[in-house]
Amino acid sequence: MAPAPPVTLFYGTFVDLPRTKSGSKHELSIRHGALWVSTSTGRIAGSDWSITNETQLQALLRKNAWPHNVRIIRAREELNEFFFPGFIDTHIHAPQYPNSGLFGSSTLLDWLETYTFPLESSLGNLSKARTAYDTVISRTLANGTTYASYFATIHIGATNLLATLAHARGQRALIGRVCMDNPSFCPSYYTDGSAQESLRATRENIAHIHTLDPEGKLVKPILTPRFAPTCSPESLSSLGALAASHTPPLHIQTHISENKDEVSLVQSLFPDSESYAGVYDKHALLTKRTILAHAVHLTQAEMELVASRDAKVSHCPASNSALGSGIAPVRQLLETGVTVGLGTDVSGGYSPSILEAARQACLVSRLLRHTHQISESGKAKDGHEVLSVEEALYLATRGGAAVVDMADDLGGFEEGMLFDTQLIRLGGVVSDSEEREMASTPSDSVVDIFGWESWAERVHKWVWTGNDRNVRAVWVGGKLVHSLNDGSRVENGGSVFGALPGLTGGSSDWLKYVAGGVGIGALGLLLGRRR
Amino acid sequence: MAPAPPVTLFYGTFVDLPRTKSGSKHELSIRHGALWVSTSTGRIAGSDWSITNETQLQALLRKNAWPHNVRIIRAREELNEFFFPGFIDTHIHAPQYPNSGLFGSSTLLDWLETYTFPLESSLGNLSKARTAYDTVISRTLANGTTYASYFATIHIGATNLLATLAHARGQRALIGRVCMDNPSFCPSYYTDGSAQESLRATRENIAHIHTLDPEGKLVKPILTPRFAPTCSPESLSSLGALAASHTPPLHIQTHISENKDEVSLVQSLFPDSESYAGVYDKHALLTKRTILAHAVHLTQAEMELVASRDAKVSHCPASNSALGSGIAPVRQLLETGVTVGLGTDVSGGYSPSILEAARQACLVSRLLRHTHQISESGKAKDGHEVLSVEEALYLATRGGAAVVDMADDLGGFEEGMLFDTQLIRLGGVVSDSEEREMASTPSDSVVDIFGWESWAERVHKWVWTGNDRNVRAVWVGGKLVHSLNDGSRVENGGSVFGALPGLTGGSSDWLKYVAGGVGIGALGLLLGRRR
Repeated sequence: MAPAPPVTLFYGTFVDLPRTKSGSKHELSIRHGALWVSTSTGRIAGSDWSITNETQLQALLRKNAWPHNVRIIRAREELNEFFFPGFIDTHIHAPQYPNSGLFGSSTLLDWLETYTFPLESSLGNLSKARTAYDTVISRTLANGTTYASYFATIHIGATNLLATLAHARGQRALIGRVCMDNPSFCPSYYTDGSAQESLRATRENIAHIHTLDPEGKLVKPILTPRFAPTCSPESLSSLGALAASHTPPLHIQTHISENKDEVSLVQSLFPDSESYAGVYDKHALLTKRTILAHAVHLTQAEMELVASRDAKVSHCPASNSALGSGIAPVRQLLETGVTVGLGTDVSGGYSPSILEAARQACLVSRLLRHTHQISESGKAKDGHEVLSVEEALYLATRGGAAVVDMADDLGGFEEGMLFDTQLIRLGGVVSDSEEREMASTPSDSVVDIFGWESWAERVHKWVWTGNDRNVRAVWVGGKLVHSLNDGSRVENGGSVFGALPGLTGGSSDWLKYVAGGVGIGALGLLLGRRR
Repeated sequence: MAPAPPVTLFYGTFVDLPRTKSGSKHELSIRHGALWVSTSTGRIAGSDWSITNETQLQALLRKNAWPHNVRIIRAREELNEFFFPGFIDTHIHAPQYPNSGLFGSSTLLDWLETYTFPLESSLGNLSKARTAYDTVISRTLANGTTYASYFATIHIGATNLLATLAHARGQRALIGRVCMDNPSFCPSYYTDGSAQESLRATRENIAHIHTLDPEGKLVKPILTPRFAPTCSPESLSSLGALAASHTPPLHIQTHISENKDEVSLVQSLFPDSESYAGVYDKHALLTKRTILAHAVHLTQAEMELVASRDAKVSHCPASNSALGSGIAPVRQLLETGVTVGLGTDVSGGYSPSILEAARQACLVSRLLRHTHQISESGKAKDGHEVLSVEEALYLATRGGAAVVDMADDLGGFEEGMLFDTQLIRLGGVVSDSEEREMASTPSDSVVDIFGWESWAERVHKWVWTGNDRNVRAVWVGGKLVHSLNDGSRVENGGSVFGALPGLTGGSSDWLKYVAGGVGIGALGLLLGRRR
């Protein structure tokens, strides 16, 4: 077999959000040209934005003495295709995925009891866990999520399986075994039992992940105290110490100030702490690698504490609306210096899509002027609090990258960055009605482009009306991990994937991959040690 | 040719929301059985909920002496298919559809100037209008909207074309030529010029629609003063008088209290009126056939006035969030006795889907407890204001039917009602991961059913995670007006549409339909008299 070409070439329109200083306005960067990715590192090796046609593209190949069989992936202008950085989901509960859309009219604390704990506890069954985890990984990849910070369950076996599946599918992920040992706030059927047991199980999970991916190239562990009420002070302290004992320190994720009743509960449970954020800080859990989900009801003083520790916030607007938690004051967080990314919070959030999270972030920021919060925070209702589409996309990519401590590696198209990317297809311009067909085909995009829109307007239409049908292909570290198999490659003569031999058959490759190594079924049995 | 069979039989699971007295709790009605629709009237001729298998179905045919070639449309249990009443969009601007997703960070009044008036005025060009209107009809039908109350533009020709297209496509519709004659608040390039001109043009449009559909079986005119600021008092009065001069009175639609600045503007423009609702009432525009869009900031006294006139409200939550208008207090409206339906308000709303409107209605009702509004209205923040999924679906069907004054004809599966229905497919149960494929196909539903969900839970999953891909077929008055052509009929051996000869080829039928009568291109020229 010939050696793999040294690079893969991507050609067409690239859209990303340039890194900016805090407080400056975010704008779309829209560039046309060629970008090449190193086959060995999966990183962007170079780019040339002066290339506008095939002749120049061929000249580029000759200039670099790249072999004739170099792969060229083209974003097709006539189908309004463009490359966009992969989405980063900074907060998602993988085991809750089967409950997506099931929450009735509940709010946080009764939702946990009624919907969440029963489902999570049932995933001790590895067969159930495998189905749930395989589905959630498929759905997030299909929605362009190249990196997810997952909460799992308390089960070692199922949590190990989630890590193995994400790794095998090529999704970048943080995997957290949930720690919950406080008998007063954990159901008797779903608890770690003690702080010692919680720590021991967590160490076992970390060992599995470090064996699976020793360098943490794709999958890394993350310490996951569920939230203050479900954790004893001993458990919180031991997790803080465990994080600090590693070099670099381990990632940490938890929830904070999602719901007002929860905030009151934490005040009553931790009377010695000045605030909810103070509880975590006291136990050394506010670090630069900490992800705090929600932060809807933080005080200004808490925001300042979070900012001073450089801890990060995952904004989960779909969930916060669905459970009636409130609207996180994102502008205030950003202006206080807190780094913010987006989270789907499946299944408090009903959707596995970060595009939906970006939409919801825009929508709720436009409602903030009607809430008590903004007046309490002393800010004028001048529209200053509104998040633009560009800001929401920044949070979905660059913001998320910073939240998972990879701001230099992910979120844009700079040389040296990892190529975690989606190929978006909006579809061709709406045809004249005489030729239009009554029956639409589901391979059609639901984004309607009429031909007069600027590129920026096309991106806005994608954000507001697009969905997973627009995500035609997804790469993580330069490797194709998802492609939409709708026959368009056949129809279109293979122009998108024509030069991509061996990577077009996602389905069979995946089966081959699994069959050639350790089958998923066997993996579950091998790795799934249950408590 | 053999005569058409007297009925079409629909067999499987039927979900609707029973009509209830105001204030009582809405529940899903989930029934399995057979229902038959008269070919001649398009109405439900009968139903039998005791039929559970093919043998009983065949016995039913024999018992009624129906011919052998009677059509049977089956909702397939193994694909989680069910029949659901068609959605009613009580407020949508057809000409704004091409701007879906384009609104930036604007609010109502600057949005009108920047985005809306320029686009609307450009639709005087009939070719542009045809493309926009054909697309919006396609998209709304594809999303299960069987009845839409459309705002058009000020142009007679283009408005006539919209009526003709809706009629030809078989979508039930109210069509309103927009009236706007106040030079202070209409741009010079887009105005009726005078109250007389506005009335004359409106009459011309009504005449066209009455010629097109004399009995108003599908398409009816609706008087459409844009909103109080764009209309002179003479114009408002003459439209009120025109509505009352018909038997039954003509439908009326307009906007009310969407945005606080707009409310202040109306107060300053109409100092003699006590309130915004009072302005419309003074001009005889608050009738039982009036649709008031938005009603976000009505006072309790205004709600009582609206209720006393039996005027209706179109709740447009996606739009109200997108433009930062606020959250309409739906519970308060309902408890005051106002009839409420849902509207997409394209393109203040970014989506043509009433399912999305239902989701947004649920979401914003869960945020209401965090707003000033609910405290001003003196209601406790006890969750009472939250809309359940069932209530949102009620508003999307029964509520909408009442808003368009067809509560006895549309919105459910009672005998005698018109069969305006969608066939929803959630898809089969998620398969074991060993057999799962990496590459998803876009014909897959994105609703994931794991097998343990109750029917009610399946419906909730549809509401929160479904989209147009789940709408497999749509009927209006018993006539198939949309079907999803994804090859599944071939795959599945035609079990859904197998007994539906001549109706499966939506695309070619449509072309034949148009070609056999008057081509759309010719229609535009024939009917499109421009001012």
